[in-house]
Amino acid sequence: MELADLVKSIDMLWVLIAAVLVFAMQLGFALVECGFTRSKNAANIIMKNLMDFAIGSLAYYVIGFGLMFGATAYGLLGITGFFRPETMGLGIYDALTPWVFIFFQTVFAATAATIVSGAMAERTQFRAYVIYSFIISLVIYPISGHWAWGGGWLSALGFVDFAGSTVVHSVGGWAALVGAAVLGPRIGKYSASGKPTAIPGHNLPLGAAGVFLLWIGWFGFNPGSTVAVNDRIGYIAMTTNLAAATAAVVTMFLTWFRYGKPDVSMTLNGVLAGLVAITAGCNNVSIYGSIAIGLVAGVLIVFGVEFFDKVVKIDDPVGATSVHLLNGVWGTLAVGLFAVEGGLFYGGGLGLLGVQALGVLAYGAWTVGTTFVLFTILKKTVGLRVPADEEKIGLDIVEHGSTAYPEWGSTHEIRTGITQ
Amino acid sequence: MELADLVKSIDMLWVLIAAVLVFAMQLGFALVECGFTRSKNAANIIMKNLMDFAIGSLAYYVIGFGLMFGATAYGLLGITGFFRPETMGLGIYDALTPWVFIFFQTVFAATAATIVSGAMAERTQFRAYVIYSFIISLVIYPISGHWAWGGGWLSALGFVDFAGSTVVHSVGGWAALVGAAVLGPRIGKYSASGKPTAIPGHNLPLGAAGVFLLWIGWFGFNPGSTVAVNDRIGYIAMTTNLAAATAAVVTMFLTWFRYGKPDVSMTLNGVLAGLVAITAGCNNVSIYGSIAIGLVAGVLIVFGVEFFDKVVKIDDPVGATSVHLLNGVWGTLAVGLFAVEGGLFYGGGLGLLGVQALGVLAYGAWTVGTTFVLFTILKKTVGLRVPADEEKIGLDIVEHGSTAYPEWGSTHEIRTGITQ
Amino acid sequence: MELADLVKSIDMLWVLIAAVLVFAMQLGFALVECGFTRSKNAANIIMKNLMDFAIGSLAYYVIGFGLMFGATAYGLLGITGFFRPETMGLGIYDALTPWVFIFFQTVFAATAATIVSGAMAERTQFRAYVIYSFIISLVIYPISGHWAWGGGWLSALGFVDFAGSTVVHSVGGWAALVGAAVLGPRIGKYSASGKPTAIPGHNLPLGAAGVFLLWIGWFGFNPGSTVAVNDRIGYIAMTTNLAAATAAVVTMFLTWFRYGKPDVSMTLNGVLAGLVAITAGCNNVSIYGSIAIGLVAGVLIVFGVEFFDKVVKIDDPVGATSVHLLNGVWGTLAVGLFAVEGGLFYGGGLGLLGVQALGVLAYGAWTVGTTFVLFTILKKTVGLRVPADEEKIGLDIVEHGSTAYPEWGSTHEIRTGITQ
Repeated sequence: MELADLVKSIDMLWVLIAAVLVFAMQLGFALVECGFTRSKNAANIIMKNLMDFAIGSLAYYVIGFGLMFGATAYGLLGITGFFRPETMGLGIYDALTPWVFIFFQTVFAATAATIVSGAMAERTQFRAYVIYSFIISLVIYPISGHWAWGGGWLSALGFVDFAGSTVVHSVGGWAALVGAAVLGPRIGKYSASGKPTAIPGHNLPLGAAGVFLLWIGWFGFNPGSTVAVNDRIGYIAMTTNLAAATAAVVTMFLTWFRYGKPDVSMTLNGVLAGLVAITAGCNNVSIYGSIAIGLVAGVLIVFGVEFFDKVVKIDDPVGATSVHLLNGVWGTLAVGLFAVEGGLFYGGGLGLLGVQALGVLAYGAWTVGTTFVLFTILKKTVGLRVPADEEKIGLDIVEHGSTAYPEWGSTHEIRTGITQ
Repeated sequence: MELADLVKSIDMLWVLIAAVLVFAMQLGFALVECGFTRSKNAANIIMKNLMDFAIGSLAYYVIGFGLMFGATAYGLLGITGFFRPETMGLGIYDALTPWVFIFFQTVFAATAATIVSGAMAERTQFRAYVIYSFIISLVIYPISGHWAWGGGWLSALGFVDFAGSTVVHSVGGWAALVGAAVLGPRIGKYSASGKPTAIPGHNLPLGAAGVFLLWIGWFGFNPGSTVAVNDRIGYIAMTTNLAAATAAVVTMFLTWFRYGKPDVSMTLNGVLAGLVAITAGCNNVSIYGSIAIGLVAGVLIVFGVEFFDKVVKIDDPVGATSVHLLNGVWGTLAVGLFAVEGGLFYGGGLGLLGVQALGVLAYGAWTVGTTFVLFTILKKTVGLRVPADEEKIGLDIVEHGSTAYPEWGSTHEIRTGITQ
Repeated sequence: MELADLVKSIDMLWVLIAAVLVFAMQLGFALVECGFTRSKNAANIIMKNLMDFAIGSLAYYVIGFGLMFGATAYGLLGITGFFRPETMGLGIYDALTPWVFIFFQTVFAATAATIVSGAMAERTQFRAYVIYSFIISLVIYPISGHWAWGGGWLSALGFVDFAGSTVVHSVGGWAALVGAAVLGPRIGKYSASGKPTAIPGHNLPLGAAGVFLLWIGWFGFNPGSTVAVNDRIGYIAMTTNLAAATAAVVTMFLTWFRYGKPDVSMTLNGVLAGLVAITAGCNNVSIYGSIAIGLVAGVLIVFGVEFFDKVVKIDDPVGATSVHLLNGVWGTLAVGLFAVEGGLFYGGGLGLLGVQALGVLAYGAWTVGTTFVLFTILKKTVGLRVPADEEKIGLDIVEHGSTAYPEWGSTHEIRTGITQ
């Protein structure tokens, strides 16, 4: 045993633990999406989150990882390592043994996939969702992931996305936006005149537990993206935490000011907004920069949710688009402002900001294009949306033959014929 | 500080963290068993899970650890280290300091104990359960644990159970089977003609959260069983994850095919089936072997639950027997098929498979024998089952004088006299 | 890379992971307090817990850390490191890089703050609570924290509080007691003759999940307080676990004996009592000492809850005072009895016990004094308590304009006019 072996041991251990924390975010997403939708769809949303991860784990191991980290073809995608990704060389990541790195990347891939289920909740056919889940983890996420993280063209330009505001969250966010748009709003969401109605979720404590779990898991997501134990892990934990805390406080006060009362579910989304926004720059921005990023995130989430709800009229039950897309974009651009090296506010000029904007556009174009084609094909073939009467009854009964709370909730609604 | 001290530090750190992850599985079991049973017994099942761990921690420290890891008497049981287990030498584990290793083994012991509460849910006297909890952690689990992990006769034969498909899960599973059989089915479970009725649990999201937590904790259970940081931890995380993911996908499609709809609670059990099955061979089988093991596990859970429910007519409210016993046995035998060294499919002949089968039989005979005696004595003395009218009212009121959801659920049932 | 760098890496990694575990306790507190209060206040209590952490993270970074760990002024408080605490030297903690240590201390500070929300649940104005949260993390906790942990006068006297029975838990507990006393009891808690009525919480499984999460997180709280990976981490995990397990068993049997049935929510509080009590001495007491400490904690919690409820008549909905104050004091004094070096029962005389008692008194005087002034000022200015009719309706609707379970619970109460 030599010193270099010990360095490797420590790094492996950290990346494995970070991966477990990121995996815990799958439970976080499941609880958030379940808690903030209605009880008649609670089992369905959990099943979708479970399948995101299960199908995604297989698809990403067999094909996705090679597309993302295989030897590059013109900087566009990887073309080696299929079926046995552990056998290809991983360059700088070899020190980790391939397995730890593959596992770490698997849980990241699953995060992108699972963002979408919330925006498409309460009306999507299960079979269509299963196919979507498979495709995003198999090809959509890995190919664009290659550009910034797998040695592709964007990394060559100096694009900075340390832990994935763009690579993970904006990809999930764009897919969520396209999915919700292609699906259309839930029955009862908009009146004939286009006025939105709030459809509250059924279990706020469950959703709040999910937000806390996501916050916990983010300490694997961001500090773990060092893929090594070094002096930065503590710093990244602090920028991550301060951005989330600031966004929560800002959202709380802003909703208090705008609505007269501090809004609980919006504030919970504020936490997530801050976390998404700091993800790109957690290692690069200054400490007060992280507070500034969180501050803007806390504002963005409030106006973003209102904007999509009232102006664009896209029905996103849990606000996934405002959390992951808006703040993914904001966080990526913020690197161009607050990065200690190259940021506009630190004397770096517009160069980095320009590259960041280019990255945002490229990921947006790719994800919107591919998911629009995917969801449209699904709509025309297996069908994307459940029939109206089944949507009223609830997806748990219709799609799975059971209910989440047989003693309360959905069952009661069905017995009495009352559906929200 | 020398290099060897650092190796020890890293290993200690890893085993402690793995132990915390395994401890988190106690919460996972509590939520699974609570969510998948009725609300009138929700507080009782949580209390049983809590006492499993609390009583087990004390019993295992004082006596159990010595029986399992003490100096062997003829390969059958350990006979040193009682009351102060930290004072005996631990051979290869000494590098960890005894405390970390004792703590790690304590959370494993508690896992075996807690499996049983699910199968015996909704009808077992609390006082009988407390005694059972004490006995399994004090003597039943430790003695057979000695055979494979404590330097006993099975390890001498080359029996492989890396993280406990047999040592932990099948022991819990056999005890669950015997307990459920001695107790008899819940009132209303079988008609006069023997036709089973499904008695759905009260809170699927809670149960699902428990399954996710178990999956999280398993990344301590399996990779942590290296008891050291080495190149295998990442590999074991991947085999563990792929087996669970595969089993989930297979269960989902199989229930879809058999019942017309993908079943949510069965798919959640599919995850657990895959996790239990890969536990014995997670370090020894090939990566595609882990997928094959998960595939079979996903099939086994569906037919296993049907078999116990419809053919054997043993009422196991949460399917603990199919998860832990059937898949514990399958996973142990699968080592004899898929082990890269010695497995039948890798040119190893029938030798290893034979030893694995012998181990399965030995653990089965021991656990069935001891728990049958134990539960029968309990039945004849303090009583194993609550009276019929108390079972109808619910164990929360009868055994603990409170209800889990005073504003909803059980209280409502009691007020109206309606019990499921 | 040299050996010393690796030691630093391992220590940093451990402290970061321990901090994440302690952060998870925030979710634990939120679930405990939510589950053990009524559903009409469920969103409000979660919002308070969220704000404790968010506001506390900012206040502690900017000012609190400097007051606690800055260069000492006469042993009373720190006076350097404000706004950029990472720039001041941290002496022995420098090996961790300042960031990891600041993050670790932040999650500890938030723990003290969040204890109070449970005792003041179901009747406190949100705006008053936000101000309290800010002040405790900004000045109250950090200044007294300096005395024992920041190089202040108590540490100079040899006061031992390894992980914070006094520094964290008794401070939270004293503040909880004062807050509940200044507020007065909830409507309906005491009859005209002063007879207490039990007001059960709405969701025992949620509260139980919180207790398990706290137990999990405590393995970061106590072993992490080594702030280094050494031979003690396993020992501390074991003393922590045995104290909690013993307290749970003792509480279970004691309630069985006193009330005729083993009480579930009291036993859950018994776990927390054991954890709080072992926190001061987890590194210093003998292993059977930890069992003795847990044994007394299990008794204290039962009589403590009865005493505050029936004799003192302070309405503490979740028993925070008995858990954190009584057992924080007990655990601190117990160091003077059971410490292997200096404890009375180990031949150490009364010296250490005297210092421990002095520390208990000093922290009590400081916290009671400052929080009494704070809560009284809040009462006279912004108002500490919601009006009676709003308390009856529930804080979720009144303070936040929403309910936690729109399909069940609170909504039902409001529709029917029935409030508990």
